Amino acid sequence: MTHNIAILGASGYTGAELVRLIATHPNMRITALAANSKAGQSMGQVFPHLRHLDLPDLVTIEEIDFSGIDLCFCALPHKTSQEVIANLPRDLKIVDLSADFRLRDPAAYEKWYGNPHAAPEVQQEAVYGLTEFYREDIRSARLVAGTGCNAATGQYILRPLISAGVIDLDEIILDLKCGVSGAGRSLKENLLHAELSEGYHAYSVGGTHRHLGEFDQEFSALAGRPVEIQFTPHLIPANRGILATGYVRGEAAQIHATLAAAYANEPFVVVLPMGETPSTRHIRGSNFCHIGVVADRRAGRAIVIAALDNLTKGSSGQALQNANLMLSEPETTGLMLAPVFP
Amino acid sequence: MTHNIAILGASGYTGAELVRLIATHPNMRITALAANSKAGQSMGQVFPHLRHLDLPDLVTIEEIDFSGIDLCFCALPHKTSQEVIANLPRDLKIVDLSADFRLRDPAAYEKWYGNPHAAPEVQQEAVYGLTEFYREDIRSARLVAGTGCNAATGQYILRPLISAGVIDLDEIILDLKCGVSGAGRSLKENLLHAELSEGYHAYSVGGTHRHLGEFDQEFSALAGRPVEIQFTPHLIPANRGILATGYVRGEAAQIHATLAAAYANEPFVVVLPMGETPSTRHIRGSNFCHIGVVADRRAGRAIVIAALDNLTKGSSGQALQNANLMLSEPETTGLMLAPVFP
Amino acid sequence: MTHNIAILGASGYTGAELVRLIATHPNMRITALAANSKAGQSMGQVFPHLRHLDLPDLVTIEEIDFSGIDLCFCALPHKTSQEVIANLPRDLKIVDLSADFRLRDPAAYEKWYGNPHAAPEVQQEAVYGLTEFYREDIRSARLVAGTGCNAATGQYILRPLISAGVIDLDEIILDLKCGVSGAGRSLKENLLHAELSEGYHAYSVGGTHRHLGEFDQEFSALAGRPVEIQFTPHLIPANRGILATGYVRGEAAQIHATLAAAYANEPFVVVLPMGETPSTRHIRGSNFCHIGVVADRRAGRAIVIAALDNLTKGSSGQALQNANLMLSEPETTGLMLAPVFP
Amino acid sequence: MTHNIAILGASGYTGAELVRLIATHPNMRITALAANSKAGQSMGQVFPHLRHLDLPDLVTIEEIDFSGIDLCFCALPHKTSQEVIANLPRDLKIVDLSADFRLRDPAAYEKWYGNPHAAPEVQQEAVYGLTEFYREDIRSARLVAGTGCNAATGQYILRPLISAGVIDLDEIILDLKCGVSGAGRSLKENLLHAELSEGYHAYSVGGTHRHLGEFDQEFSALAGRPVEIQFTPHLIPANRGILATGYVRGEAAQIHATLAAAYANEPFVVVLPMGETPSTRHIRGSNFCHIGVVADRRAGRAIVIAALDNLTKGSSGQALQNANLMLSEPETTGLMLAPVFP
Repeated sequence: MTHNIAILGASGYTGAELVRLIATHPNMRITALAANSKAGQSMGQVFPHLRHLDLPDLVTIEEIDFSGIDLCFCALPHKTSQEVIANLPRDLKIVDLSADFRLRDPAAYEKWYGNPHAAPEVQQEAVYGLTEFYREDIRSARLVAGTGCNAATGQYILRPLISAGVIDLDEIILDLKCGVSGAGRSLKENLLHAELSEGYHAYSVGGTHRHLGEFDQEFSALAGRPVEIQFTPHLIPANRGILATGYVRGEAAQIHATLAAAYANEPFVVVLPMGETPSTRHIRGSNFCHIGVVADRRAGRAIVIAALDNLTKGSSGQALQNANLMLSEPETTGLMLAPVFP
Repeated sequence: MTHNIAILGASGYTGAELVRLIATHPNMRITALAANSKAGQSMGQVFPHLRHLDLPDLVTIEEIDFSGIDLCFCALPHKTSQEVIANLPRDLKIVDLSADFRLRDPAAYEKWYGNPHAAPEVQQEAVYGLTEFYREDIRSARLVAGTGCNAATGQYILRPLISAGVIDLDEIILDLKCGVSGAGRSLKENLLHAELSEGYHAYSVGGTHRHLGEFDQEFSALAGRPVEIQFTPHLIPANRGILATGYVRGEAAQIHATLAAAYANEPFVVVLPMGETPSTRHIRGSNFCHIGVVADRRAGRAIVIAALDNLTKGSSGQALQNANLMLSEPETTGLMLAPVFP
Repeated sequence: MTHNIAILGASGYTGAELVRLIATHPNMRITALAANSKAGQSMGQVFPHLRHLDLPDLVTIEEIDFSGIDLCFCALPHKTSQEVIANLPRDLKIVDLSADFRLRDPAAYEKWYGNPHAAPEVQQEAVYGLTEFYREDIRSARLVAGTGCNAATGQYILRPLISAGVIDLDEIILDLKCGVSGAGRSLKENLLHAELSEGYHAYSVGGTHRHLGEFDQEFSALAGRPVEIQFTPHLIPANRGILATGYVRGEAAQIHATLAAAYANEPFVVVLPMGETPSTRHIRGSNFCHIGVVADRRAGRAIVIAALDNLTKGSSGQALQNANLMLSEPETTGLMLAPVFP
Repeated sequence: MTHNIAILGASGYTGAELVRLIATHPNMRITALAANSKAGQSMGQVFPHLRHLDLPDLVTIEEIDFSGIDLCFCALPHKTSQEVIANLPRDLKIVDLSADFRLRDPAAYEKWYGNPHAAPEVQQEAVYGLTEFYREDIRSARLVAGTGCNAATGQYILRPLISAGVIDLDEIILDLKCGVSGAGRSLKENLLHAELSEGYHAYSVGGTHRHLGEFDQEFSALAGRPVEIQFTPHLIPANRGILATGYVRGEAAQIHATLAAAYANEPFVVVLPMGETPSTRHIRGSNFCHIGVVADRRAGRAIVIAALDNLTKGSSGQALQNANLMLSEPETTGLMLAPVFP
């Protein structure tokens, strides 16, 4: 059975990545592509790497007839997304890739995003989209809120450890290195090639990055009490990839065993043998997440490192994985592409 | 029907790229992987990006039992390849990715490669592997010689023009820009990241690059008289991609029409609308080749530009395309992956 | 004697490069920095790499008192520059880095830039700023028009050959590869890191690049008859550098001898031994230009290649070299910095 | 007065960087360049970016007559350095850039480097080369041991804090990101451009990096009791630069004040205003080190970040700074070059 798919916000990187992945999906057909600023153009004009595909031209959201659509991906900017989704038909399945429905508490949303939520009642029905941990809820969800790409990476290493109680909850530091495409296709001076190439730096230092809202929400829920980690993202001159280096207190062997057990049956999350560590180059362009654990020289401390592709497992791949669940497709369909190296 | 596949030279980039592509092929099963220098290791150790695949461990070539193998890819270094292939079973289909069987004339081989050919009798049965132009011969070949990646790119823009007689045969200049992975995984000082990054240069200037042997052979055969082009490759600080800028004499509209007609039914070669030009970023990681034509401001001159991925369409993708033909599979199977951008 | 220097347009890359170079100049003092969009900020805020220097804060052009200024660099956008310069005091020496005063013929200016020149009378007194060829005129000039960075690179290889009559004037092809910083600091989608990194392409193909106006003007003047070359620039994922590959008709030995003689006493233009070719990595960050000549395998044809840094020798370094001449300083002062490699 | 300088190991990156810097030094003359593997070649052949300089050809170490040499830089590989230096004339001033004389305790040396020290008696007279903290000893030293580039970066942020007692000595984590040139010019598969470009990873995780020997030695000496930090380096696809992100316990305002006071009169170490953080792109190619401090959202925790260029301030620039002191030159001579951006 073929599912009819719409993508709103198709002119951004996550929109393009969705199209790339769905192109190999045997049971999905893209029937509408919306991008208000580029309406009227073909997808091949906006993204020439997709020109070989038979795709509908870009239209405005208003032009879409949702009656025949089974599932809609929203890859719109934050804030726009909540306004659009609030007005979509109630019988439409939706996977949102924006930040708008990630935080369940409206106060937390307002704290991290600076404005009151425009659709708090829709927020209530959203399921958090970290597939491996919300799988059953996602199957029956109408609206799934895709996670932040940094938030996903950090949770892959920390959730099982927090749940199992094998690390000190008050001593978690996450030092994250992310590629440039995570910042999207927006026109900012600090995203120019001449600015970024050959240099790197930290940003949102000291606990101001919005993905901390997700960490706080999820880790506190898991622990049953407030958990606040330290989190510093860094921008690296590469297009794709997130490498999260976690510093935790606990026994490395136990930490490794906990993670290995947690992901033993997961198709996309790979725990490396004890002592090995991952590289972003080995997951580039794929839906895989590689995790490594190393004991520190100081007893009772460990370093846990995860690598994933921010556009795939961190965003559009996750979205497709969730859509598969919502449409009762095998979860891995369209997502087993091998990483591209070199 | 599943075909059993062996890959010799699996520890190089073209070997890894073959594995990446075949992983999505429904009717091929990799049953042997050889890499003498890394025999005993798993493919995941040598190429961690392939660790999710269920693959045989690396062995030496001598350890392979070829009796159950249907087709063998040889991704060995030049010169080694001819020695190995001369000793492979006669009933084995072979796609060679080295330079060893590209030149039909033993004297030409010796001129460009500096040593007499070790298996000239095997050379005689080799079919040149530029799929779009040798398709019928490839279907029934025992041994197909994969083209040089630069040679493929130049031929895609020039062959139809030479055949149609729409350009001046004595005034062809090809200025080519290629990514680093084309040089392979060999340990050379000039391939270090610190040497290459952020700089670019020409190499093999003045007509000394070995791929000229292929151009001379193929263009002269097409024209029915000697054709010698000018050819200058440049090394660009990017991993994948070849961009070939051809300067030719002829009417741009006629040139465009000739190319458009030649590739009208080709699944992988795309001729852009008149005046548009390609970018390597839009074919990265895929088997597509994009071609553009622009008229120069001086009448009677045109610029013809092609872009392809040296590891895919220029090498391992081409090899798989040829293997599909040899095994009576649909030609595009396993090769319709969309390019990875950004 | 210390010269007081103003820089208009200090918030762009060429402005910053001027400051970097002048910082090592013993006899120049920067007394005014203008950047209307960032007036009020310190230079260290706009360019943190210059924060260790003792510099005046950015002001608007209107705020500058030019009475004490000896020389003014204009690193403003095209079109703005002509309007500003027309209103500067008549006794001020000016080095303009924009395109506004490069073309002597108002009709040529309008043809290439699309608008009538706003200060044609000022244009008449401008001296073309290619130092090695206009040195004496520059010494006594009030206004020097810095060349295009691509135009400079092409002229370094072609001017001596045209003057000496050793190449065929109707058969000149220039295939140029330039780094990203040449496009400046403007906010354009195609200059984003995620767009450019790891890919490359041609642009302004077919004779539409504005620097052709300079080539036409200069080469025709040298030859005493119209000369029109073919010119294709390509954008390469590196920050700095231009590599110009010239295809010419003539005897390579004579071509090499002509270039070697032309630059024998030049401090910044280095002709490599016959057969060697340059790389942008070996001139990065410096005012040097390296030139190489190779004979093609086809008699009577040669490849001539030049490498320089677009921001230094192609723009701000050239500007400082000219300013030295205008202020009767030794020409090389502040410009002997070695290239930065790796 | 001109000092005669020899450089041993001139064919590596730190050797070339020394030549680049000394080229602008008014009172140093390079009179001997040794590189055993490339003896007989000119420096311009080995490093074409230095071809404009008038330099002696490369010789073997044995060929050097040290009688007229005032100071010798040793940029040799570890282990070779100690053997060579043990046999140099006793009246020669030496700045060693290798790891051989950094650790004062022979047992610590053997622990971190795996072999007994070949010249322990020479070790005893070596002064640790972190200029800002050993300035007076360096002035009168015969042998100065250049620090590890990572070790220098970490010490710049941590030494003043440990000395002042404003951070918890048992809770120091240093997450470091370094560019590729720090690994030198050696032929290793993992340093190839195709391997490194567009990916990043941690290495020597868990307390195995040799620069920890320096941290342990220096921090314990400062604190008067054993101090063991956690340290994880990461390899970033850029040529130059180290960014060290330190996680410490203490009051951010006090930490910032302590660092600002410590470096108030230092010419090369810049403490940014509270809350600002550095980027490697703003110190590239220069001898500057930028330091930033940010308070974490959790009280009593701070993030301290330093950026420097591993080849300059982290190695050859530091060496020249020390040589200036040893030769009674102004400390900053030859080192005030502005960073190169973009």
